[in-house]
Amino acid sequence: MVIRTQPLTVKAFAPYGDVLDCAGSPDKLINEGMCSRFHDRAELDFEDGRAGVSIFHAVPRALPYDLTLLERHPLGSQTFIPMSFDPFLVIVAQDLGNKPGKVTAFLSAPGQAINFHKGTWHGVLTPLAAPGLFAVVDRIGDGANLEEFRLDKPVMIERG
Amino acid sequence: MVIRTQPLTVKAFAPYGDVLDCAGSPDKLINEGMCSRFHDRAELDFEDGRAGVSIFHAVPRALPYDLTLLERHPLGSQTFIPMSFDPFLVIVAQDLGNKPGKVTAFLSAPGQAINFHKGTWHGVLTPLAAPGLFAVVDRIGDGANLEEFRLDKPVMIERG
Repeated sequence: MVIRTQPLTVKAFAPYGDVLDCAGSPDKLINEGMCSRFHDRAELDFEDGRAGVSIFHAVPRALPYDLTLLERHPLGSQTFIPMSFDPFLVIVAQDLGNKPGKVTAFLSAPGQAINFHKGTWHGVLTPLAAPGLFAVVDRIGDGANLEEFRLDKPVMIERG
Repeated sequence: MVIRTQPLTVKAFAPYGDVLDCAGSPDKLINEGMCSRFHDRAELDFEDGRAGVSIFHAVPRALPYDLTLLERHPLGSQTFIPMSFDPFLVIVAQDLGNKPGKVTAFLSAPGQAINFHKGTWHGVLTPLAAPGLFAVVDRIGDGANLEEFRLDKPVMIERG
């Protein structure tokens, strides 16, 4: 199967999580007008744990990309903040209960971060350019917070 | 008074907060070896509130920079994650109880984020290049969480 990336928009991504960017009007002007604050844009949701900030350094991938693995975190949301002004590939899937369903792929714009809601099926972190550096806000705690699902057949993701 | 920036290192910044980057060995390899995780690198500390992720869009400044205002947040830590691969200016000050003391200025390297510990005196967000976009993990909650201190005389910060 082949699917094409679509632009990462708040509306299209809403079933899976939040898009964090500086589109639209800021919620507040701070620092004597020199800084716009877009306030509290991610639905952080952690069971039996707490929020933490980690750094992820991932190998850049290229399109077309063969998707073979999806995963989800049943105990917490996960926010991915790119630390370079580059697009990255965001892959999600519907939930059919115990396994993922229809796959959708988004191509972010530079300056967009995303937050996967708790339990959302998603692909692993796939930057498309070096340095592949992200800050990640996710659940710090014990317990089984990773489910993986290997696809029978790869899904090829092409630039839309 | 004139002070010069110094490189942002874990050791030099330790009295004020945490440096988050991918220096050294990762804590864990994930995603079948394609991603390094540098785990839980910020001391998040929120009184009577919760963590949230906001986007800050700040006007870029230039060096030399005239520092006239310091601020602190008595109720929570504040993590600044640059969303472009650029250095930014990080200004902190010692705490003399109810007012700031000696000022120190750091110049980050691309790919470094910082976390101000709760109550640390610091300058406002000062990117040195466009887009001036940051994700900020700080306290979401009611209450007076901002103290400002205006300097009698500006401190000029020059590139070290």
